[in-house]
Amino acid sequence: MLTSPPTLSDIKRAHQRIVNHVLKTPVITSHNIDDIADCHIFFKCENFQKVGAFKMRGASNAIFSYKPEDRTNGFACHSSGNHGQAVALAAKLAESKAYVVMPKNSSRVKISAVEGYGAEVILCEPNDESRNQTCQEVIERTGATLIHPFDDYNIIAGQATAAKELLEEIDDLDAIITPVGGGGLACGTALMAHSLDPNIDIYLGEPKEVDDAYQSLKAGKIVPNTTSNTIADGLKTTIGERNFKILKEHVKEVLVVTEEEIIQAMKLVWERMKIVIEPSAAVPFAGLLKNKEQFQGKRVGVILTGGNVDLSKLPF
Amino acid sequence: MLTSPPTLSDIKRAHQRIVNHVLKTPVITSHNIDDIADCHIFFKCENFQKVGAFKMRGASNAIFSYKPEDRTNGFACHSSGNHGQAVALAAKLAESKAYVVMPKNSSRVKISAVEGYGAEVILCEPNDESRNQTCQEVIERTGATLIHPFDDYNIIAGQATAAKELLEEIDDLDAIITPVGGGGLACGTALMAHSLDPNIDIYLGEPKEVDDAYQSLKAGKIVPNTTSNTIADGLKTTIGERNFKILKEHVKEVLVVTEEEIIQAMKLVWERMKIVIEPSAAVPFAGLLKNKEQFQGKRVGVILTGGNVDLSKLPF
Repeated sequence: MLTSPPTLSDIKRAHQRIVNHVLKTPVITSHNIDDIADCHIFFKCENFQKVGAFKMRGASNAIFSYKPEDRTNGFACHSSGNHGQAVALAAKLAESKAYVVMPKNSSRVKISAVEGYGAEVILCEPNDESRNQTCQEVIERTGATLIHPFDDYNIIAGQATAAKELLEEIDDLDAIITPVGGGGLACGTALMAHSLDPNIDIYLGEPKEVDDAYQSLKAGKIVPNTTSNTIADGLKTTIGERNFKILKEHVKEVLVVTEEEIIQAMKLVWERMKIVIEPSAAVPFAGLLKNKEQFQGKRVGVILTGGNVDLSKLPF
Repeated sequence: MLTSPPTLSDIKRAHQRIVNHVLKTPVITSHNIDDIADCHIFFKCENFQKVGAFKMRGASNAIFSYKPEDRTNGFACHSSGNHGQAVALAAKLAESKAYVVMPKNSSRVKISAVEGYGAEVILCEPNDESRNQTCQEVIERTGATLIHPFDDYNIIAGQATAAKELLEEIDDLDAIITPVGGGGLACGTALMAHSLDPNIDIYLGEPKEVDDAYQSLKAGKIVPNTTSNTIADGLKTTIGERNFKILKEHVKEVLVVTEEEIIQAMKLVWERMKIVIEPSAAVPFAGLLKNKEQFQGKRVGVILTGGNVDLSKLPF
């Protein structure tokens, strides 16, 4: 178990540990998109990852970091989204069991997806207090191990493997942009990139409605979100403590975008690239389009974090 | 100019002619989809092709088959869809000019797309008579050469290159399924596959609402569509004469599907594979799902013909 921010060696070990449990996703480029953005974008397509999101990397690394004999009581998490599916599938692959606490107003589709991976779903009230308390009760009842979605060095090391693959495939990136929610992927990407080249600029994309990372980095301390009114439902969480400490050392700028800018960026990717991405995944590209002059002519990696959308509730 | 059905040599020459003007699209597989379909499906992703559809292959081959000195008066077609965009872009790449006749009720987005490739758009009344007459007038006025969308051996040879790439990448296919509209892609695929191996079964997918290919092959003569009431707007056309003659020698079965089956198949591909395909492209997969027992355990190539959808008018 990692007890300090992952180094390049830690990330390499994480990659070896999960390489048979996750997909090596493609890096896609588009002349059409490059023309619009006036730079060269390399999209790392984690929307094609197992469970439809990069979360599979972190969950797999966290769970497979435990020895088989330490997996017998299973793993628990609370999640209304992709982390729950990732823990469910990673636990299944590790021949263990998963307990996923979900708000009782979660859609039937999401609950079925988690159950489809063999996990036990425990419903709770749709608020943070009930989520934490219910998860704690499950852990006490079952002896399961908590898998935190982001404030955990093993999770961060797992998420870092997306940037590792991107940097192995594409040379000379000037910058990488990821979305920021709790900060697991953002930290993994920053640590990985800067372990190879401190000159790669790390940008984060964040919805204005939940701009805790932007506010926190500006204030020099964590400023929690007070609202959760964004279509980018993977980014509502406030940044974690370990995550904040890492990001304040590594991030060049947080690009804050409106809901309309997220929707337009998402639509552009669907229309021009013919791939399905979820709103959270469109946030970095929206941030790039809003700040084109900063990226003009540069080689920019953009991590498309996931592709799980409810097709009956699209914003366009 | 080809004056008889393309042979393997003709298709190879077509491929050489267009290889720098079209994309080699990926072949994608999905465990999840294979589990649902109970067979092994290899999706040839022409939704990622230039202009978002396989039509770019045929139009490029037809236009580049003319010597530069025979391209000076430009090329004309009538189309409300992907063929118009393909002729526009191929003519541009050939440093020529395109005249695209479009029904005046075409969406602004489609007209802009064609104009965006530098073509001149001429609007006509939304019926076959006006389309043909307007196109004829354009040809008389400009001296442009007509590029027919399907009833043309050069178009057929160009469309055949999608199956050529698929068969070069994937061994031992038991069957290939394409949609059928006018029959350009269907013919190209059948001729290509059977030039290598006559045992590959060629299936066509067709909407029940416009099942002229099914009816024509059953009757032994062309039976035109009398309605055009399908969401698969690329497949409304009645099969061409050259196309019918070829298909009756090569096709094992036409799989006819309902509108609801098309929509469900399209939704499955979007949700599970995270790629955008248009309704016409979902028709072969819908036909496969409806006839699972016929394909059980087999290796099946499915050509995903295009990805051009109006995101503001989705059927789910």
